[in-house]
Amino acid sequence: MSFLKKISVTTHSKQEFVMLDRELNEELRESGVEEGMMLVYCPHTTAGITINENADPDVRVDLDKALNDTFPNHDYFVHGEGNSDGHMKSSVIGASETLIIEKGQLILGTWQSVYFAEFDGPRHRQVYIKIIEG
Amino acid sequence: MSFLKKISVTTHSKQEFVMLDRELNEELRESGVEEGMMLVYCPHTTAGITINENADPDVRVDLDKALNDTFPNHDYFVHGEGNSDGHMKSSVIGASETLIIEKGQLILGTWQSVYFAEFDGPRHRQVYIKIIEG
Amino acid sequence: MSFLKKISVTTHSKQEFVMLDRELNEELRESGVEEGMMLVYCPHTTAGITINENADPDVRVDLDKALNDTFPNHDYFVHGEGNSDGHMKSSVIGASETLIIEKGQLILGTWQSVYFAEFDGPRHRQVYIKIIEG
Repeated sequence: MSFLKKISVTTHSKQEFVMLDRELNEELRESGVEEGMMLVYCPHTTAGITINENADPDVRVDLDKALNDTFPNHDYFVHGEGNSDGHMKSSVIGASETLIIEKGQLILGTWQSVYFAEFDGPRHRQVYIKIIEG
Repeated sequence: MSFLKKISVTTHSKQEFVMLDRELNEELRESGVEEGMMLVYCPHTTAGITINENADPDVRVDLDKALNDTFPNHDYFVHGEGNSDGHMKSSVIGASETLIIEKGQLILGTWQSVYFAEFDGPRHRQVYIKIIEG
Repeated sequence: MSFLKKISVTTHSKQEFVMLDRELNEELRESGVEEGMMLVYCPHTTAGITINENADPDVRVDLDKALNDTFPNHDYFVHGEGNSDGHMKSSVIGASETLIIEKGQLILGTWQSVYFAEFDGPRHRQVYIKIIEG
């Protein structure tokens, strides 16, 4: 049993968190897998995948500010595209998240959602969803 | 072969690192799996899972201070629960770690232990342990 | 089908990013696995695995400076080995990356490479490569 899908994500800001839960649940349902793991993988180097609060949107407002504050676009950066802050955030947040599948459902905490984290938008982006049974 | 367990972790401070090695080894033994992978997953948005030094406790003292210093509870945060620093640390440290199982044992470096990282304690928390054979 | 390999990495600086793509592709070819996942795991607590830009080496120059700037070796550190900055970076960057295998190839974005990230070199280091079919 091998299942792999690629989905598209469109971002509208330089930095943005796009909730992926609906797409992940759809692909899981389509796969028919009952027990296993799901890898959500970002193939871009100025973006990533993260898990965080789904209820109060203020959390994302605070994350947005704190990420820019902690990982700014330093004057000393030499990369010509001017997006080295996005590369830094990408390595810190990470390219993927791995989720548990139980009884045909993703295990997520009450307050958890999975986000595509854009750090150099707006852009058209891709996310891979790989499911392994077991 | 499908194996999934949920264990409880109790934390006693706002920020704390709880070593999980004993529990992970117990669950691995119970599973009987000889070769595969183990996903250690945190279902909370103000906590995470990290791997770091198990020998000198001073390393955890330094990590504790550096995390608070690098990811403070900024005055500009708007989320009403006052724990946006914990949400930030959660996304930076990450919700899970994946380990290798070889000959019925976890592969960990000499100085590596797996920690539940609390960023908004004290609390009662859960950790999922998913094992896949292969 | 169980596949596990350990490879050696030698670093030459305090901080360094060593591209692993060639070795990962070689091990994948040797495994003969067509569909599945690859876990690239670092068993050290002052190093990690990260995915980032493979084209312009200036990105690595910028990452190097920004990591040192954001996670310095604070005066208040008490760990006697003087490498607590490396432990901090290790927890932030993470001990592993998980990759997707499709049709016998690793899925990596156009600009993505996998790096061993050294934070307390120069040293002789190890990296585990675990492949699971599925």
